Amino acid sequence: MTQLESAQIGKITMEMEEVARKEGLSSEFIRTGVAEGKIVILHNNDRPGLRLCGIGEGLRTKVNANLGTSPDNPDLQNELEKLKVAVKHGADAVMDLSTGGHLDDIRKRILEESPVPVGSVPIYSAAVEIVKKGKKVVEMTADDMFDSIQKHVEYGMDFITVHCGVTLETIRRLRNQKRITDIVSRGGSFLAQWMLCHEEENPLYAQYDRLLRIARDYDVTLSLGDGLRPGCLADSTDRSQIQELIILGELAKRAKENGVQAMIEGPGHVPLNEIEANIMLEKKLCDGAPFYVLGPITTDVAPGYDHITSAIGGALAAKAGADFLCYVTPAEHLCLPTLEDVRQGVIASRIAAHVADLAKGSKTAQEWDKKMGKARKELDWDAQMELAMDPDLVKSRRDANPPDEEEACTMCGKFCAVKGLKEYFSEPLK
Amino acid sequence: MTQLESAQIGKITMEMEEVARKEGLSSEFIRTGVAEGKIVILHNNDRPGLRLCGIGEGLRTKVNANLGTSPDNPDLQNELEKLKVAVKHGADAVMDLSTGGHLDDIRKRILEESPVPVGSVPIYSAAVEIVKKGKKVVEMTADDMFDSIQKHVEYGMDFITVHCGVTLETIRRLRNQKRITDIVSRGGSFLAQWMLCHEEENPLYAQYDRLLRIARDYDVTLSLGDGLRPGCLADSTDRSQIQELIILGELAKRAKENGVQAMIEGPGHVPLNEIEANIMLEKKLCDGAPFYVLGPITTDVAPGYDHITSAIGGALAAKAGADFLCYVTPAEHLCLPTLEDVRQGVIASRIAAHVADLAKGSKTAQEWDKKMGKARKELDWDAQMELAMDPDLVKSRRDANPPDEEEACTMCGKFCAVKGLKEYFSEPLK
Repeated sequence: MTQLESAQIGKITMEMEEVARKEGLSSEFIRTGVAEGKIVILHNNDRPGLRLCGIGEGLRTKVNANLGTSPDNPDLQNELEKLKVAVKHGADAVMDLSTGGHLDDIRKRILEESPVPVGSVPIYSAAVEIVKKGKKVVEMTADDMFDSIQKHVEYGMDFITVHCGVTLETIRRLRNQKRITDIVSRGGSFLAQWMLCHEEENPLYAQYDRLLRIARDYDVTLSLGDGLRPGCLADSTDRSQIQELIILGELAKRAKENGVQAMIEGPGHVPLNEIEANIMLEKKLCDGAPFYVLGPITTDVAPGYDHITSAIGGALAAKAGADFLCYVTPAEHLCLPTLEDVRQGVIASRIAAHVADLAKGSKTAQEWDKKMGKARKELDWDAQMELAMDPDLVKSRRDANPPDEEEACTMCGKFCAVKGLKEYFSEPLK
Repeated sequence: MTQLESAQIGKITMEMEEVARKEGLSSEFIRTGVAEGKIVILHNNDRPGLRLCGIGEGLRTKVNANLGTSPDNPDLQNELEKLKVAVKHGADAVMDLSTGGHLDDIRKRILEESPVPVGSVPIYSAAVEIVKKGKKVVEMTADDMFDSIQKHVEYGMDFITVHCGVTLETIRRLRNQKRITDIVSRGGSFLAQWMLCHEEENPLYAQYDRLLRIARDYDVTLSLGDGLRPGCLADSTDRSQIQELIILGELAKRAKENGVQAMIEGPGHVPLNEIEANIMLEKKLCDGAPFYVLGPITTDVAPGYDHITSAIGGALAAKAGADFLCYVTPAEHLCLPTLEDVRQGVIASRIAAHVADLAKGSKTAQEWDKKMGKARKELDWDAQMELAMDPDLVKSRRDANPPDEEEACTMCGKFCAVKGLKEYFSEPLK
């Protein structure tokens, strides 16, 4: 029985208990959420208990880090290093998006070494395999796509992105829309190319039941990809994006009816004033399925700083109800991320998630911040380092800038506002 | 006649025309805003036309960068370099907050070299001077404070921060509140120490008319400082903060009645869910006076990344109506910023301001983003560099990561979503 099927008949699984414990919530809360399709538990039946992460309504906002080689950077070791950096800085899940080098090896090693759930996009390796054979991406068959999906879940993926909502209907609407950027999702683009070339429906949509059977066998969570996500602010929340979202809502419903957990992927490039409506729409059109957003990036003009444009969008999205933030690194739109980009991306995304959890009134989140406030008032630098999201960075910056007065810092030195006031005004800390 | 007095009798000044031209708005719009106290024009009568910046309702969101030495880092040259970096990356104004080295020299040089308006906090130099004489900060006299203010405006400051709202009444409320961080504003702390030591009212409040006369003589804008700004999330939007805001609203009204331009300074550390209410409150309690916010920082636990915690808060604040964002650098809470911190801080703050302008529907802002979207669709890398907020960074990252396929980047290489789709789906760009 899958997690969803167990939940629906009122059975609390070990996995639900584990998620409940991690979140400080009751197992019954988790069971209800899973049964209603509002919480998913990322895991793979073939690896029980190894990796586990709950995502959805009422839970802490989670963060995903994308890893993976590219044709220009096929080195596996580098990606394994990125995995370590991502996990060290607090990523709750990672995705292997490799398209360069020996994909089977890379997938195997990342799955072996990751202590957090791993996701992937099977259409990528289907594309890479066909190109390796000297053919074009559009020459893959529907069976090639499903074989790749089967392989990924057999290897142990906990969740897979499947762009089932790129249909003849959405492409017709896209044509009618006249967007600036058309399709910027890689998986969405592969499928659209295939459909336009063959003049046939998307196999992942046409044979969705086949997909559900594979996912059900391993209890893998489907991440219903948004192939039509906007690639610039001017394209956001347009008819093609919302058309796809409607279809994804129907597919999430069919997944739930078939005992398969599903979440929905979301934009993308979205102006700040449209973010809340985007989250509300997803929750309504997809019956409360967990929302997994990329960014959202809130301006197009800051390449090199898209971890910041996304932290702004991610914080507001998560406050409005987005459950899972896919990090965006400073390398976005420019190149494959470096180790340093991964660190920056994970931290920026965790800041967004935590800022949202604070705003949603999470007591655990608020307690953390309160401790930092007290450490600052007490000029307790050891506590400040310990409580910081990135203690190493705080330590290295303080070591590099030793103040003349130990209690202060080099910004104000002997003119420290906190220190100066203590002599004349002091209240016991709560 | 001051800008405000001219505006009130219906006269459009050269300065209003200049601001109107820069903003692409009518001179009459600017005049009305100035007359109503909803727009200020940062300048100093002694330097007509040299530096100019309009701030307030209906204008582009502006960004300030703080510079200045400290007792631990008294080097002037370094601060002049920071000025260059801040201006190069788009700061609309700077503040000299120096407290180390030869303050008169530093102030003079920064004013000489800055092409943008310069502000300062005169109470800092009053404190430094008294300490130089071997006395304590609290031993300064009211005349010392006003002499320092007089000196700063004579030197040519375009705006000055004055913490007039730290009164016996607000301190009584602070005592009653039992905050975690009490006072974290340096100027606010100096004045509170003075008041608590002498058991006397804040001279900047008690002799506010004297302050108005000095400001009026030079047509300098008063930046009414928030000495009670919260120093951690748990302290935000509390009775002492709002009490001070009420008083600042009364003082802004008195400034307007006396022909003096005024803006209001605001928090600080604020959870995301309280930001909009904070902006609304300022606009209501201060009759629409421009709001100049520091951050707001949206979590306490990410020292080293406070340019990001502030970009989140600043974007939401500016969208809700904040007019002027004071940058926060990655060095905040840790040390005096480096050149690199200044660059990061200015860019993060500009991103927040631009994201808000986009969300508020600015056509100029939207046009910029639309061009970037088109450049991306066309895989035009020269245009992408030119349109980027930080072209040098984009160029250096691309140069360091040359893709195998010229049109693509090293993230997807030959599997580029945009490039692949072009063969099968292509719409003429609008």
